[in-house]
Amino acid sequence: MLRFALVGAGFIGTVHARSLTDHAGVELRTVADPDASRAEALAAKAGAQAVSDIDSVFADPQIDAVLIASSTHTHASLLHACATAGRAVLCEKPIDLALPIATEAVAAVQASGIPAMVDFNRRFDPDHRALRDAVRSGAVGTVELIQMTSRGPSLPPLDYLRVSGGQMRDQTVHFFDLLRWITGMDPVEVYVAGAALADPRVADVPDVDTSVATLRMSNGALCQIDSARRIAYGYDERVEVNGSDRMVESGRRRTGTVSRYGLGTVVSDGIDVGWFERMSHTYRLALNEFVEAIDAGRAPEPSLADGLAAQRIAEAATQRIAEAATQSLRTGRAVPIEL
Amino acid sequence: MLRFALVGAGFIGTVHARSLTDHAGVELRTVADPDASRAEALAAKAGAQAVSDIDSVFADPQIDAVLIASSTHTHASLLHACATAGRAVLCEKPIDLALPIATEAVAAVQASGIPAMVDFNRRFDPDHRALRDAVRSGAVGTVELIQMTSRGPSLPPLDYLRVSGGQMRDQTVHFFDLLRWITGMDPVEVYVAGAALADPRVADVPDVDTSVATLRMSNGALCQIDSARRIAYGYDERVEVNGSDRMVESGRRRTGTVSRYGLGTVVSDGIDVGWFERMSHTYRLALNEFVEAIDAGRAPEPSLADGLAAQRIAEAATQRIAEAATQSLRTGRAVPIEL
Amino acid sequence: MLRFALVGAGFIGTVHARSLTDHAGVELRTVADPDASRAEALAAKAGAQAVSDIDSVFADPQIDAVLIASSTHTHASLLHACATAGRAVLCEKPIDLALPIATEAVAAVQASGIPAMVDFNRRFDPDHRALRDAVRSGAVGTVELIQMTSRGPSLPPLDYLRVSGGQMRDQTVHFFDLLRWITGMDPVEVYVAGAALADPRVADVPDVDTSVATLRMSNGALCQIDSARRIAYGYDERVEVNGSDRMVESGRRRTGTVSRYGLGTVVSDGIDVGWFERMSHTYRLALNEFVEAIDAGRAPEPSLADGLAAQRIAEAATQRIAEAATQSLRTGRAVPIEL
Amino acid sequence: MLRFALVGAGFIGTVHARSLTDHAGVELRTVADPDASRAEALAAKAGAQAVSDIDSVFADPQIDAVLIASSTHTHASLLHACATAGRAVLCEKPIDLALPIATEAVAAVQASGIPAMVDFNRRFDPDHRALRDAVRSGAVGTVELIQMTSRGPSLPPLDYLRVSGGQMRDQTVHFFDLLRWITGMDPVEVYVAGAALADPRVADVPDVDTSVATLRMSNGALCQIDSARRIAYGYDERVEVNGSDRMVESGRRRTGTVSRYGLGTVVSDGIDVGWFERMSHTYRLALNEFVEAIDAGRAPEPSLADGLAAQRIAEAATQRIAEAATQSLRTGRAVPIEL
Repeated sequence: MLRFALVGAGFIGTVHARSLTDHAGVELRTVADPDASRAEALAAKAGAQAVSDIDSVFADPQIDAVLIASSTHTHASLLHACATAGRAVLCEKPIDLALPIATEAVAAVQASGIPAMVDFNRRFDPDHRALRDAVRSGAVGTVELIQMTSRGPSLPPLDYLRVSGGQMRDQTVHFFDLLRWITGMDPVEVYVAGAALADPRVADVPDVDTSVATLRMSNGALCQIDSARRIAYGYDERVEVNGSDRMVESGRRRTGTVSRYGLGTVVSDGIDVGWFERMSHTYRLALNEFVEAIDAGRAPEPSLADGLAAQRIAEAATQRIAEAATQSLRTGRAVPIEL
Repeated sequence: MLRFALVGAGFIGTVHARSLTDHAGVELRTVADPDASRAEALAAKAGAQAVSDIDSVFADPQIDAVLIASSTHTHASLLHACATAGRAVLCEKPIDLALPIATEAVAAVQASGIPAMVDFNRRFDPDHRALRDAVRSGAVGTVELIQMTSRGPSLPPLDYLRVSGGQMRDQTVHFFDLLRWITGMDPVEVYVAGAALADPRVADVPDVDTSVATLRMSNGALCQIDSARRIAYGYDERVEVNGSDRMVESGRRRTGTVSRYGLGTVVSDGIDVGWFERMSHTYRLALNEFVEAIDAGRAPEPSLADGLAAQRIAEAATQRIAEAATQSLRTGRAVPIEL
Repeated sequence: MLRFALVGAGFIGTVHARSLTDHAGVELRTVADPDASRAEALAAKAGAQAVSDIDSVFADPQIDAVLIASSTHTHASLLHACATAGRAVLCEKPIDLALPIATEAVAAVQASGIPAMVDFNRRFDPDHRALRDAVRSGAVGTVELIQMTSRGPSLPPLDYLRVSGGQMRDQTVHFFDLLRWITGMDPVEVYVAGAALADPRVADVPDVDTSVATLRMSNGALCQIDSARRIAYGYDERVEVNGSDRMVESGRRRTGTVSRYGLGTVVSDGIDVGWFERMSHTYRLALNEFVEAIDAGRAPEPSLADGLAAQRIAEAATQRIAEAATQSLRTGRAVPIEL
Repeated sequence: MLRFALVGAGFIGTVHARSLTDHAGVELRTVADPDASRAEALAAKAGAQAVSDIDSVFADPQIDAVLIASSTHTHASLLHACATAGRAVLCEKPIDLALPIATEAVAAVQASGIPAMVDFNRRFDPDHRALRDAVRSGAVGTVELIQMTSRGPSLPPLDYLRVSGGQMRDQTVHFFDLLRWITGMDPVEVYVAGAALADPRVADVPDVDTSVATLRMSNGALCQIDSARRIAYGYDERVEVNGSDRMVESGRRRTGTVSRYGLGTVVSDGIDVGWFERMSHTYRLALNEFVEAIDAGRAPEPSLADGLAAQRIAEAATQRIAEAATQSLRTGRAVPIEL
């Protein structure tokens, strides 16, 4: 039985609390949140104790593992605390929006030798996993072309965008991780074209809400990732990997299988309306991996180093977008067309 | 009854000959080819007269229209001849690989006032057309993101690649045209990443066989086009247009509807094996438009100007690939990633 | 908060226990099973008390509702007990395999006025429900032709088949209920052709494992239901309703969306391997309806009368199969073909 | 070069004329029709001679083969004439609506030894053929359950229905043939429930426009065929074969691949609007088989005996419908349900 403290009792903390209480090999001992009433409400539902003083988590010898689901700016120091206290840690992404701080936290964790995992939950989606198996087993041959689609149904509030680090660090980073994990390769360069199409005020953040990234992989393969914050038809996340021998792709998941046939037209059920409907099941599967790895004495994956790697790609992509914001630079890179 | 001369009795000339003879409003009077025996063979099958002296086509007062299906380097001078002789003209793409020569030919044709059409046959595919109708009718709202896939089953011979003008001018140009036609907008800049993945000798041509192009449209929308000369699973051509209100896409056309259900797996019929299986029907439909437009006294579409516009986009894309071939330039544009 | 006793701690009882403990408006107070150790094991997991003396359930004034998930032969007397004690009741199907006993139990329940529901859980599947909505809203027009498919992955043990009442009463009865519920009409006659194809020993039970039933509905529409105990490709349950204005159908639910494209062939994820994977979610939804109806003071559906009606159709179908087992009768009904 | 006379210049004769003129190994020499102007119009288009005296076809020594596309009541005597004159014959179905006359004509043809084929064109549809290959190769294992759907978009005129022989002989007969051909087995008994749902006047013909047939095959497998004259959503023809090892089915063919994604709903292209759009290509393929078989000196398939066999099944089915029209008989066969 692995005894957990959950740090963070907000939306994503609540999701994790449910996984933790449902897991047969886990005891959720403590819910910690600086907001005492929030901590208590969630702890009551989960049959755990509530604390608002986070330090007390690390003082409790009956805590084996910490699940970090608090605000991003607290992740790095919590990781340091886990390293010092010798607690296994499952950390929501990102490690820290500032790469130097993130790098230092990862170094501390690695030096301590504690089991640590970053919660890139999409890796646990069965469709993504089947795709990876097809690629890594060699079934597609040499990977040559990858397409990824990451589109959500609504623009987050501008206030959120201002602290999010930008579309690359906040949204596309998941796909930078999937890209590395599915192909087993690193990208070596990235180009991004982005725009504020859903809402022009996004440009003032400054950020983009729609973008197309092109990456060149270490074996020369090309990858394209389109990211959109707000589409009109639900939550659309897909991956396609084309290789020398075969192409493998995940499709759009429909909410039902009902079709209505009329003359000339078939009307079918649409796709999931949001990210949570499509991906919430992966949090349990990620927790399973964390617990299993610790039980088996192996390092859980994705590692914090995986988290850093995806973040570095996002960093380069963000830099590219920032440069493009200067007109003189943009015209220097893409080629203008005169018709 | 529109009386045609067909110039060029090679593969694509033979395809056109069949459309011409099957068309109720057309008389195929002459098949012209400098290779007399080739001209005669095709003319015999089509019930037409054969000539090997191309000039005689323009001397014949009983020819109303010329279909140019000869080698690319002959197109421009044939267009000049049509303009001088006052013959309607349906011209295979491209007008000329050299933009100045192409531009001059188009100017001459426009000055003459003859009906002229460039054979961007994909515009006549019913799926592409349904997509365009959805976009142009406003059903998708404001266009924000476009994805196009252009993948063929086999690498053309290196000898062909050497005279083809490169992947952008030879293959992707069709999608530059579809892009303009479907959206009713022009792109304003283009970025391309390409590689020789199907065969490293393609790099020596120099050319690429796999590429990802990113275009920014006049309204700010982003477009991504992936082009592959050789894939393993047939001929894959698709378009997806995402707008503020709806997304519309064409799917992969399967060769049959049969599915075999086993435990855990369903095996279904694959897609068309090649370009011809997928697109050959469009030549007839393009001819229909040409004949109908002339009968109705309106200008047929796509115009030669449309041909030039697509070629100019291909030109910019090709220039981008050429620059990227110099390492210093490439690293100057895409951002290198250090992991 | 509705306080429940669950009677029956076997497989399906365990499924119900989970729904009951997860439901926010329910308290699972007692788990009752004559097998005390089985009752205790499940009660411990559910945080309830265990009893092996079923009568004590009805003596406990703190029980509001009883969920009957025990052996079929105990259902009728438990329903009588609920009626006498004035407890709301949610009863697994069937009410009793003997129609007179079932009819009497239903009469007693109806006379008592207690809320009562039979657990035809398929009615709560969202796909079936969407289909019904399409039909009942008039979107398909007048119903003319209905097709139902009910196929499972494995033959139950022969010992089970001997007490099951036969394929019609055990398997197809669910679809007789769906048929009534979806169309809002009763069937007026039924024909069945059946055979023991999965295992010839099924004929000795006597029973059939593969059958095709044809029903004529009260409005003249025709319905076909095929039932197979053992198919090779998973669990296949579908419904199609064709009307004068439109056709609506549910499709096969795939376990994933991944497709692997090779030359000429696409390999995709198959369908659910079994009934439980496809239908287990409906137990929770059925419980929701039961609790909501009681809270709102309306009669929950499907009623026990619905249970009886489906059973009566199964009875007629079973009689048809039994008659057909006599060769002289069979040839008297279907027409022999001489080629 | 096989020299043909085409007898019948109506709708289906015109379809055949086009296949004959397009076939490289065929010379269409004569178009025969008692209506001289109709014969002449079609002959002119086909570059053939027209005759209105059918006997002259058999007097012409330059005719190798006769394609019978005239009215049904003329088929038998034309087959006798072919047998006498020693001309190969491709005959539209049915041979004759009266089984004794049909049987006699087939006997005469068989005695003469001329190559003869009945035009069950659906056998040449690539989807049906792929299904048969899967079944006959053993890929599905032992056949246990077959489902066939035969639904057209509109009720034929009542005047046509009066001479058609009824739905079984006119429509479902094609599927009786497919059933034998796909499974390689004969049915041994048939049950049919039918109704006049599209138009009550069909009952006065007397005929049915909607029906469900159940057949038992020689190996014990069960088959269900639903036939509808008028559905609202186009032309729907499908086959599903379930065996002990696998299930194989043909799907609905969509007219295009375009999908429009909105929130909660996807709108896709519908199915073919009619029989001709779905099946017209099979006439060419049937002609190919006829010509190839004669060139190769083998008997073309489907044989006239195949035509007779399907007709005999239709005969038994029709008899069943006729008997059911008497209320006392119907209630004697299907079991009435009392709810």
